[in-house]
Amino acid sequence: MNEYPVGLVPGPVSVPRNIRESWLTDFGSADLEPEFLRLYADNQKLLQKLLGTKESVVITSGEAMSALWGGLKSALEPGDRLLAVASGLFGEGFADMAKSIGMKTETVAAEYNSLPDPRKVRESALRFRPKMITAVHCETPSGTLMPLKELGDIARETGALFLVDFVSSGGGAEVGVDANGIDIGLLGSQKALSMPSSLSMSTISERAWKVMENVGYCGYDSYLPWRDVPRVPAPYTHDWHGMSALNRSLSSIMKEGMENVFARHCRAASLCRKLAAEAGIELFPLNEDMCSPTVSAFYVPKGWTWEELDAALRSRGLVVGGNYGPLAGKVFRIGHMGSQADESLVTRGMEIVRETLAVKN
Amino acid sequence: MNEYPVGLVPGPVSVPRNIRESWLTDFGSADLEPEFLRLYADNQKLLQKLLGTKESVVITSGEAMSALWGGLKSALEPGDRLLAVASGLFGEGFADMAKSIGMKTETVAAEYNSLPDPRKVRESALRFRPKMITAVHCETPSGTLMPLKELGDIARETGALFLVDFVSSGGGAEVGVDANGIDIGLLGSQKALSMPSSLSMSTISERAWKVMENVGYCGYDSYLPWRDVPRVPAPYTHDWHGMSALNRSLSSIMKEGMENVFARHCRAASLCRKLAAEAGIELFPLNEDMCSPTVSAFYVPKGWTWEELDAALRSRGLVVGGNYGPLAGKVFRIGHMGSQADESLVTRGMEIVRETLAVKN
Repeated sequence: MNEYPVGLVPGPVSVPRNIRESWLTDFGSADLEPEFLRLYADNQKLLQKLLGTKESVVITSGEAMSALWGGLKSALEPGDRLLAVASGLFGEGFADMAKSIGMKTETVAAEYNSLPDPRKVRESALRFRPKMITAVHCETPSGTLMPLKELGDIARETGALFLVDFVSSGGGAEVGVDANGIDIGLLGSQKALSMPSSLSMSTISERAWKVMENVGYCGYDSYLPWRDVPRVPAPYTHDWHGMSALNRSLSSIMKEGMENVFARHCRAASLCRKLAAEAGIELFPLNEDMCSPTVSAFYVPKGWTWEELDAALRSRGLVVGGNYGPLAGKVFRIGHMGSQADESLVTRGMEIVRETLAVKN
Repeated sequence: MNEYPVGLVPGPVSVPRNIRESWLTDFGSADLEPEFLRLYADNQKLLQKLLGTKESVVITSGEAMSALWGGLKSALEPGDRLLAVASGLFGEGFADMAKSIGMKTETVAAEYNSLPDPRKVRESALRFRPKMITAVHCETPSGTLMPLKELGDIARETGALFLVDFVSSGGGAEVGVDANGIDIGLLGSQKALSMPSSLSMSTISERAWKVMENVGYCGYDSYLPWRDVPRVPAPYTHDWHGMSALNRSLSSIMKEGMENVFARHCRAASLCRKLAAEAGIELFPLNEDMCSPTVSAFYVPKGWTWEELDAALRSRGLVVGGNYGPLAGKVFRIGHMGSQADESLVTRGMEIVRETLAVKN
């Protein structure tokens, strides 16, 4: 469907009209105009505030995977060690990506419906001595949110860089980059920022810049050329429309108040899980404490295949998310992030879920 | 300036309103919808027609530099040999990029206001035996267009892959991918396609796919995961808005007729150079035959610095392009590509140039 009557996909989320209207301006050349550089700098400051950091912020053109690859390649060289902390597909994915480019890896993994034990992470870090520890804040396929503070402490204790994918939580939950000791933090535009998928935002600590300078990685996704942007030109023609959309998104979050936005996400998430429980739908994560405020994962109800459920929900106007890998066909997801962290939208969506299940039961 | 009263920058060009209005639709998830896959496939077909190829077309999210890096990294491994054919900054840039990722390189370079001699390219290719020969079709900073047929023949004769950057010519001039033996052809969105800068389009020949499969490069800019898209899912959440904008751009080119579009570019280019000559402005390329139909490069007139000229033109509403590297401050450029390949716009712009120079003279 081109447009969803009731859209609760866990990203890309529905993009509010005022953000889409950024494209109505026929912007000049981002390479030439001081207005663009000021906009970039303004977005850097707003992102520092939103993500809780005094360190650098870099905004690049490309989907969030460009930031994931860029984070690994900019800071690691073949043979370096990477410890992946995982409670799902994306967490494990970091080890796969790192292996594919020549790193030695170890993974501390929990069941997908659970969270890893930080003691095991510490044990592994002390023995394996990784150059980088990776974690995924919100594991979107699993619907879990990983506590970061202890992992950041372990990284500091063992001298590792701490890379965190907060692609689907940043903007919808507190990320606390500096408080959690995150050296490389990665955010996508199509989740809680309610934008199209074409921009990536990254936080880079001074420690991480030093490592990146030693590595000297060259490529589209290298962070190095961005260190002094906007004081120096960007390494390619930037996306002024996207930068304007980002400014509208961040300004709207600041106007509502970050704490209010995070609270709105929590309310939408609690409501979603309460309505699901009332409809007899089983939560995938082991308990509510580990659930993300941006996405909820549920077992596909007994008596349904995912394909049947998806088709039945769509026939009533609701589109939700399926799953991947071992969770494909077994777990489905409701995305209540950004523009979709909306209690009335969640109520409407879960009412459709309830009605759909009732017809068959 | 956010919007240019008279914009003749050689990319990013002015984006027509109907293309920008692609963003007014609140598209669903590109990961989930058959409509998106059909749109992607339709754009592949339109690009095959526009670029003259029966080989693969890949459309990715990211500025054109992602395609340049992706082309090199997907097909080369450290130690491989690359022969760069250059008549300007971007042509020479391929050798710099390749060196930075461990290749052995050789460059056959002409003066920036000229074109390289294919005999020298052949001599070098026969001796150096490169795995890849690179060329830039329209060398935007120099305003020249490089004939490709002889270079393609040399690549075939010596068994090299032929990679061509037609970022700023594709859509505005005939590229002839198959006719010229181009194995990897690279196009950006913000030039003759009159779009924002966020998409890249590449043609990949069967020969190139075989090499890429042997190399097995992994990364954001790797072409490998794209070989069977849209029959298999894309490796990240694609940009549905951009894909829709591309469809509008390509459909509009097909409606006007490709030959008519190319002819319109030639007329705008000839007119620009004629009006410049009448205003006493000296063409940068040695002769008109080597000029690109998408951009014209001129010497900054005597008695002016580039900064003075830029400020004076801007004060009358006209924004043109400056230059980089050895041409910075010496050569300026008029971009008449895509939406700007418009005789009335060029006339208006060159009238401002004439008036501006007249005041000082």
